[in-house]
Amino acid sequence: MTEAILICAASEQDANLYYATRFWAPDPFVFTQINGRKILIMSDLEVDRAKAESRVDEVLSFSRCQAEAKKKGVAQPGTVEVLDLLFKERGVKTVQVPGNFPVSLADRLRAVGYELVIRKDPFFPERMIKSPEEVEAIRETIHRTEEALKSAIGVIAQAEIRDGELWLRSKPLTSELIRKTLHLSLMGSDCLAKETIVAGGTQACDPHCIGKGTLKANWPIVLDVFPVSMKSRYFADITRTVVKGKPSDKVKTMYRLVREGQEIAFKMLKPGVDGRAVHTAILQHFEKEGFRTGEMNGRMQGFFHGTGHGLGLEIHEAPRVGGVSEILQAGQVVTVEPGLYYLDAGGIRIEDDVLITKTGCESLSTFPKILELE
Amino acid sequence: MTEAILICAASEQDANLYYATRFWAPDPFVFTQINGRKILIMSDLEVDRAKAESRVDEVLSFSRCQAEAKKKGVAQPGTVEVLDLLFKERGVKTVQVPGNFPVSLADRLRAVGYELVIRKDPFFPERMIKSPEEVEAIRETIHRTEEALKSAIGVIAQAEIRDGELWLRSKPLTSELIRKTLHLSLMGSDCLAKETIVAGGTQACDPHCIGKGTLKANWPIVLDVFPVSMKSRYFADITRTVVKGKPSDKVKTMYRLVREGQEIAFKMLKPGVDGRAVHTAILQHFEKEGFRTGEMNGRMQGFFHGTGHGLGLEIHEAPRVGGVSEILQAGQVVTVEPGLYYLDAGGIRIEDDVLITKTGCESLSTFPKILELE
Repeated sequence: MTEAILICAASEQDANLYYATRFWAPDPFVFTQINGRKILIMSDLEVDRAKAESRVDEVLSFSRCQAEAKKKGVAQPGTVEVLDLLFKERGVKTVQVPGNFPVSLADRLRAVGYELVIRKDPFFPERMIKSPEEVEAIRETIHRTEEALKSAIGVIAQAEIRDGELWLRSKPLTSELIRKTLHLSLMGSDCLAKETIVAGGTQACDPHCIGKGTLKANWPIVLDVFPVSMKSRYFADITRTVVKGKPSDKVKTMYRLVREGQEIAFKMLKPGVDGRAVHTAILQHFEKEGFRTGEMNGRMQGFFHGTGHGLGLEIHEAPRVGGVSEILQAGQVVTVEPGLYYLDAGGIRIEDDVLITKTGCESLSTFPKILELE
Repeated sequence: MTEAILICAASEQDANLYYATRFWAPDPFVFTQINGRKILIMSDLEVDRAKAESRVDEVLSFSRCQAEAKKKGVAQPGTVEVLDLLFKERGVKTVQVPGNFPVSLADRLRAVGYELVIRKDPFFPERMIKSPEEVEAIRETIHRTEEALKSAIGVIAQAEIRDGELWLRSKPLTSELIRKTLHLSLMGSDCLAKETIVAGGTQACDPHCIGKGTLKANWPIVLDVFPVSMKSRYFADITRTVVKGKPSDKVKTMYRLVREGQEIAFKMLKPGVDGRAVHTAILQHFEKEGFRTGEMNGRMQGFFHGTGHGLGLEIHEAPRVGGVSEILQAGQVVTVEPGLYYLDAGGIRIEDDVLITKTGCESLSTFPKILELE
């Protein structure tokens, strides 16, 4: 039986498509793999670039396929008619598609007689297992991220404290300025960071709040930086939390616990371990020390996100290390990012990126973890 | 009858979802609009931020919806079960979804009895018509882009010519360096540019080739810059072509024709005009002057892309101004970007962003068009 898979998307927005083709394009295009043979169908605008840059076996011109279809009597051949012609020619009747395949195209393919089999995520399970080249690419993005973090934390360290707020060179020191410091440093090394989190005060209690305004002294500041390399397309994801001034005792305890949470993960992570067991162990450690997770005064507080996620061509990819059972495998790269968030103390999160090895795990990030800045 | 629409996506990747909710999130979430009432169903991680930042009528907690579903006997409530509960409660039986709605979710919703109606693109036709605030947002991104272009072209102007190549301060002047100049300038004003095209020589004959290596003297260099504002989320898209040194006569003629192509568009563009007529008029002008479009020596040459596209929350959005019939309306913002590409001369493209007004069109971009740099 002829085996076929089909992805129709823009590879800039679809990591599976980029993974399969290594062709980066802003607009949707058609990729199909028939009995292992990789085929692209490209617009006139992209056909030559696809031939030069993609790693596939065959690049077809969409307009030529359309012309052929017209010869065979199709009045207005679109994507479905062009695919129909190709599939008939190559004996394809059943097509595997990803869960995010567009329903409009799915309906039209089914209407002309194809059976669509929706393959469960991860669509390419092999994408979870990083090759040595992929690990090196991630490591390189991590290095760039650590350089950026160093300069950003250096700026915070230089601040003075006036009336409980941070000031630098007679101006308030803001989340926006630290974010720009990080982004410019990263862009200088061809990495692209967006929505970088520089959040202090109670802003940091919302783990996805990117932070704004003047930073506070004596409160933790969460810096969560997750750029992608414009060269390799691989992400890094590192978080550090710092305090300029004097942290409260509660914050010091939270920081110690989050560090211990990371250590629990580093000890447990290895092939065959269930990510959920790791996540539960950290949650229990926090609870045991009296740091509870749940809704308090109408807001989620404590440790209410996952412990980690796969990292690669996407910032969040399989596997997850969190509340859902998932067995880890050697070669996976995952983040380890426990956190604790309380409205009366602020947010603490520390995040490293680790490679699951045959016998345990190795941290790819090495940036120092120091709460209190001199 | 109860009217409902449903989008399940990450708003960072789905402009319709951002348009409807004004909530920016990196991970997929559920948006439904029932009889005009906008509802979000958010994870614990995002629920508070969604309440603070989104412009919707109701923000539900996914985990609370799950708990309710469990009470009603659903063993493992997922997105479909949670939606089923909500839809039953509010009398929804038919749901309108966009064409890019994920097939996996579509199949499961149909399996529990919902009729899905796939609404044709543009999903929100009103998104094509820009409000005054949206036009101002685009104009602001355009200003930033023009500032960046000014500094980048300034750098090219300063270059010296050695053996037909551009050099600056004893180093070869590369596409990469000019791209970085553009990106850093834009990042300084909170705009994000990716894949910016700085392509010279025959590289520029492939309109999507971003360009690499040392730039050539006497050949056109295409600079196509299309950043998004990280504040407003609106794009600009401007292209200029310059030559350092002496352009060939063919290049000078191509430049003049492309300028004339733009003028044809500026004269024709107004409400009620078919974009295809504009595109055809430009193509015919080029043909008439002996500049043919089509495959030559195995490569597409001439003017083989569209004249323009809508611009807003996406870099390419409706309407198109190209080979397909599409009637233009007042309030639309479209690019006007004819080009000519020949392997023996290089590529020329000039692109402005125009607003269709009640009586004609107004160019929002004003950057000078000068081929030869002093």
